[in-house]
Amino acid sequence: MEGTKIFYKKMRFRAPILIVGLPGMGNVGDLVAKHLRTELKAKKFATLYSAHFPFQVLMFKDGKFRMVSNRFYYYADPKGKHDIILLLGDTQPGDSVGQYAVNERIVEFFKMLGGKTVYTIGGYSLGNQYVKEPRVFGVGTDERMRDYLKKQGVVLPLADLTPIFGSAGMVVAFSKRHGLAGACIMGETGMVEVDANSAKAVLQVLSRMLGIKVNLGSIEKIKANTEKLLKDMEESAKSAQQQDMKPQSYIR
Amino acid sequence: MEGTKIFYKKMRFRAPILIVGLPGMGNVGDLVAKHLRTELKAKKFATLYSAHFPFQVLMFKDGKFRMVSNRFYYYADPKGKHDIILLLGDTQPGDSVGQYAVNERIVEFFKMLGGKTVYTIGGYSLGNQYVKEPRVFGVGTDERMRDYLKKQGVVLPLADLTPIFGSAGMVVAFSKRHGLAGACIMGETGMVEVDANSAKAVLQVLSRMLGIKVNLGSIEKIKANTEKLLKDMEESAKSAQQQDMKPQSYIR
Amino acid sequence: MEGTKIFYKKMRFRAPILIVGLPGMGNVGDLVAKHLRTELKAKKFATLYSAHFPFQVLMFKDGKFRMVSNRFYYYADPKGKHDIILLLGDTQPGDSVGQYAVNERIVEFFKMLGGKTVYTIGGYSLGNQYVKEPRVFGVGTDERMRDYLKKQGVVLPLADLTPIFGSAGMVVAFSKRHGLAGACIMGETGMVEVDANSAKAVLQVLSRMLGIKVNLGSIEKIKANTEKLLKDMEESAKSAQQQDMKPQSYIR
Amino acid sequence: MEGTKIFYKKMRFRAPILIVGLPGMGNVGDLVAKHLRTELKAKKFATLYSAHFPFQVLMFKDGKFRMVSNRFYYYADPKGKHDIILLLGDTQPGDSVGQYAVNERIVEFFKMLGGKTVYTIGGYSLGNQYVKEPRVFGVGTDERMRDYLKKQGVVLPLADLTPIFGSAGMVVAFSKRHGLAGACIMGETGMVEVDANSAKAVLQVLSRMLGIKVNLGSIEKIKANTEKLLKDMEESAKSAQQQDMKPQSYIR
Repeated sequence: MEGTKIFYKKMRFRAPILIVGLPGMGNVGDLVAKHLRTELKAKKFATLYSAHFPFQVLMFKDGKFRMVSNRFYYYADPKGKHDIILLLGDTQPGDSVGQYAVNERIVEFFKMLGGKTVYTIGGYSLGNQYVKEPRVFGVGTDERMRDYLKKQGVVLPLADLTPIFGSAGMVVAFSKRHGLAGACIMGETGMVEVDANSAKAVLQVLSRMLGIKVNLGSIEKIKANTEKLLKDMEESAKSAQQQDMKPQSYIR
Repeated sequence: MEGTKIFYKKMRFRAPILIVGLPGMGNVGDLVAKHLRTELKAKKFATLYSAHFPFQVLMFKDGKFRMVSNRFYYYADPKGKHDIILLLGDTQPGDSVGQYAVNERIVEFFKMLGGKTVYTIGGYSLGNQYVKEPRVFGVGTDERMRDYLKKQGVVLPLADLTPIFGSAGMVVAFSKRHGLAGACIMGETGMVEVDANSAKAVLQVLSRMLGIKVNLGSIEKIKANTEKLLKDMEESAKSAQQQDMKPQSYIR
Repeated sequence: MEGTKIFYKKMRFRAPILIVGLPGMGNVGDLVAKHLRTELKAKKFATLYSAHFPFQVLMFKDGKFRMVSNRFYYYADPKGKHDIILLLGDTQPGDSVGQYAVNERIVEFFKMLGGKTVYTIGGYSLGNQYVKEPRVFGVGTDERMRDYLKKQGVVLPLADLTPIFGSAGMVVAFSKRHGLAGACIMGETGMVEVDANSAKAVLQVLSRMLGIKVNLGSIEKIKANTEKLLKDMEESAKSAQQQDMKPQSYIR
Repeated sequence: MEGTKIFYKKMRFRAPILIVGLPGMGNVGDLVAKHLRTELKAKKFATLYSAHFPFQVLMFKDGKFRMVSNRFYYYADPKGKHDIILLLGDTQPGDSVGQYAVNERIVEFFKMLGGKTVYTIGGYSLGNQYVKEPRVFGVGTDERMRDYLKKQGVVLPLADLTPIFGSAGMVVAFSKRHGLAGACIMGETGMVEVDANSAKAVLQVLSRMLGIKVNLGSIEKIKANTEKLLKDMEESAKSAQQQDMKPQSYIR
């Protein structure tokens, strides 16, 4: 197999909106996309494979397996206005050639489905500190989108030339090149690998933007677990420090 | 040379079964395939080269040499039902592009030979401990194959999303995509680089599945050597530890 | 997206001269090109993207963003003899395949615009020491160019087989292959990542060569800041050393 | 620039023999090829560039420069039987795709010139020890070549599956695939980066095989320098060790 392949069921969508949530910083994109998939009971209709993904197969307890992939799910808008397409996956391409090829392919595929709007989800890190009240940052393809983001309470980047690594940035950049409207929406994050608190903040903004209601119960649970863990770690660090401050015997 | 090349003798096989055993975790695949080659007196009929293999030539004591490669051997079933094709080799491709290209090429080549069933052999690691009584794990392309594996005493994966790295996973995944039946059969392994005990466990299951008799003498010998070595290491570690526990002189 | 793409406005230039200043050793090329862009109020007319650049998007405080790129700017010569084209950018390709592809593409594009002369800017390092009075080194495509460089006070390399890494060398090498005249002009540098002093030295030579007047005020400011920083570091290092030389208590 | 390019002067050779000596283990190949070039006053007639070489340009004291390359030189046999073609260069390709492409291209180019015999030169390392009386090892494409090598005093590999890395192995392997006769001739080496003693041993065998006389003076000089350096290092190591064995003060 060479390059990138998408296997898909032929379907018709109504002015679909694409949400891209792949593994990345704080796993914010991944958490958001998976939560939406569950909440919206979205159905898979396409799978993307790439020769630039890791050469891995994933096994399951029932004896099934599959190659690592990115997968497209859809949710039919009950009001018939904007169907939602979710892109989630196990991985992103590991090299430049793969990132440029796969991310443009995603945009071309979505365009072929009649799509005009793309939201990519990522993390925005300002340091190595857990963020208790994460802000939601964003950039947009055009003036109208940027105004819309600001109205939704999305914060613009704090510094010029701040980088976005990987698909969250590349997909929205290719969207712009292909004439689609789009935004990269990023939850403030730091320190933790799976940041449910940041994902929650993004979900609150995003669900408002999409006009859908999303139960945040399961995300709240991950958040509570993470914060409990962090508190325990902090306390054990503190007591270790006190140990260190005890007078030490001068004979070693 | 670009891409992948297979040089082969034209031959006819009867409903052949492919066994893939390449270097990998615990070298289980390699040991199993080489053992079968010797036991079945299998004959080479094809050689695969790839520009994604390491750029190495291997020399021999008789002054000959060859480029690193993967090689296909065959064993003509005396009952005339299922010939066996073995794939073994010096190496696997080192990058994603190579792994995706070479592993699909293997499947396409086997399909061209009229093959319908593929077994890949690998290792299944649960930690960094030598496994005295290794289980044989497996996953299958379809319900029928999975039922068959279970009947043979093969254990299903213990956790969801357990990864298989490299050819053992990729070949069976491409087999599925090309409509072939297949399984990845993995010997439980850990710590040792060449795990004859794990290979032995796989050989016992596999020979039953293939309806062939395989003498395990030479594998038993490697296993015995490995276990003697481990015991020696353990004892010398123990005595070193006792040394450490002796009172130490206070003048250093 | 595969390979390299240049999006450009169709324009006519008069015997243009290309100045290439990309990120590299001491950031000399980058500083020089950016300074010229500002001083000459040069206008962007082309953008180069490559699948061999890092997979990054850069965000801005106004909510805009762009993929990393190289960009061409022009300055119309008021005397109508030699327009100046500047190439600057966020990055260079990260691998050999990318460097060979992108750097030849730059030359081909410039040739298509009617260009005949290319100057690339880089750093020339003789060690890990800050250079207070940097020399300007250079090599040229042909005898005439080398004589011209020497007349401008440019110093020839101090040793045979001294390497130039990346675009500064590759673009001038491809220029030669395509029959253009060119030189690689390098400011002596060492230790500091952003060497404004070295860039200043190059700007003095280059502006003379191009027959333009360039205000060095802003470069002087960066230089002054760097040198103040270095002096502070030196002093704190000295006082730390004195600390070390104090008699130490013999009980540790 | 993509792939591999050879620029060459059209010439006619008489049953030419190719000697490949590129940078590698102990730099034996490089030393041998450069020595032969000087001794035979060989003339350059072709240059090979590859997008898989490092992206480097080399500068010279006279202000000239060139891209890193491999270069073909010829020596016209005064007896008119076998012209000699030397391949030497700054580098080898850094990745598998490049090694497979470039090394086959070298063989195809030589075949186009009417060549039938290829000798590649490399190092053969048995450990990290300087070798005072290096043997010359070799492998050959066919029985006749191997017999010939043995008659010349060339030693066959000491172990099966001994690897050759890079062009020395790959070129002779592709020679075999293309129906040419060939051998890889390796000087025993260890520890030193530039092993003139090993190169000398190869030159003695090779000049006999080629029926040419080669003055070894300059190689002897490098060898003498290296051995003096090693002796000095050894002595200073010895005296340092004696220092260590002195009784140490118990107050630290």
